[in-house]
Amino acid sequence: MNADQSGEEPPTTEERIMEATFRALLKHGYNDLSIANIADEFEMSKSSLYYHYDSKDDLLVAFLGFASDRFEEAVLSTPEDDPMANLEHIVEKLLPIQLNEEQEAIGTVMSELRSEAVTNEAFREQFTEMDDLLVDTVRDIVERGVEDGSFREVDPTRVAEHVVATVNGARASRTTTNRDQAPAAVRVSLASYLDSTLRGRQ
Amino acid sequence: MNADQSGEEPPTTEERIMEATFRALLKHGYNDLSIANIADEFEMSKSSLYYHYDSKDDLLVAFLGFASDRFEEAVLSTPEDDPMANLEHIVEKLLPIQLNEEQEAIGTVMSELRSEAVTNEAFREQFTEMDDLLVDTVRDIVERGVEDGSFREVDPTRVAEHVVATVNGARASRTTTNRDQAPAAVRVSLASYLDSTLRGRQ
Repeated sequence: MNADQSGEEPPTTEERIMEATFRALLKHGYNDLSIANIADEFEMSKSSLYYHYDSKDDLLVAFLGFASDRFEEAVLSTPEDDPMANLEHIVEKLLPIQLNEEQEAIGTVMSELRSEAVTNEAFREQFTEMDDLLVDTVRDIVERGVEDGSFREVDPTRVAEHVVATVNGARASRTTTNRDQAPAAVRVSLASYLDSTLRGRQ
Repeated sequence: MNADQSGEEPPTTEERIMEATFRALLKHGYNDLSIANIADEFEMSKSSLYYHYDSKDDLLVAFLGFASDRFEEAVLSTPEDDPMANLEHIVEKLLPIQLNEEQEAIGTVMSELRSEAVTNEAFREQFTEMDDLLVDTVRDIVERGVEDGSFREVDPTRVAEHVVATVNGARASRTTTNRDQAPAAVRVSLASYLDSTLRGRQ
């Protein structure tokens, strides 16, 4: 996971294993994932996977670190300059109104992996890091907005915790209920929360 | 589950099985739950449990219905008259600052059961009902506040979806991360969200 990812170097074995794990998870789902079907995606033997990772859990914990880096690149590195546009970009990425098939599969897999965190400390640490990263990113944007005068004097941590809890709750409702209308309602209410909390508009 | 629960009648066999399931879940956790250890709590044979429920999953789906009824009694039947006090009561019940041991165990078990809903439609329907019930309850209180003039003219459904997503996200962070400070921050931000959204106070 410390390999050069500049795009010039060929992927390391670890990176290729992570990509294979991702494909196997999307194809088989978490419940039916096995070292054998990861090896199938990798065209390598099971034993060579065990050379790199002690167990399926060990491999999945590494995968969560890999997914977190990808998530950081895809979601948290916002192209916008304006703090409010930045926040809207993140909320849009985290809670799209319409999910394509891959986004839906990723949501399901992440939800299943998160449930392992209830009883598995190594998984729990990965999700702690992911949520910390998300809260820190939102908090930094809010802080920047307060400093440049575009936002009111709010507690940036509190706003960030609120946004992340709301987004995570709406994402969970997508994977664990049939309440299909909920995420769209939350998107609207979250936009209005940000507007009224950060800019004092009612 | 349709039995008279007025407290006069002795509990039905189904109710006694549900109580036994609850005790077994708290004692063994979801992962180690078996029909055998439910039977231990019930002083009945495994075969008599199978007489009432076809499988462990079948029993757990019934348990979720039972838990939902209990939840409705304990959390959603608010003693307060004032709509804002009602909402605060619900948020306090759903997201206590300090959890006692039993509350923590219940949170863990419900989180594990919810994760089954990702792949099991019968579980999914139970969590859909539970979240619907919660959203409907919050929406009705907000509606009442709008009608009696204590709240501003908001969209009650949107506010209810926001509250439920935020609470569910914070509850999930309690069971799947080590971010111990998050629920308290969300409690504060949720109180301020309700105050500013419903009463226009900044």
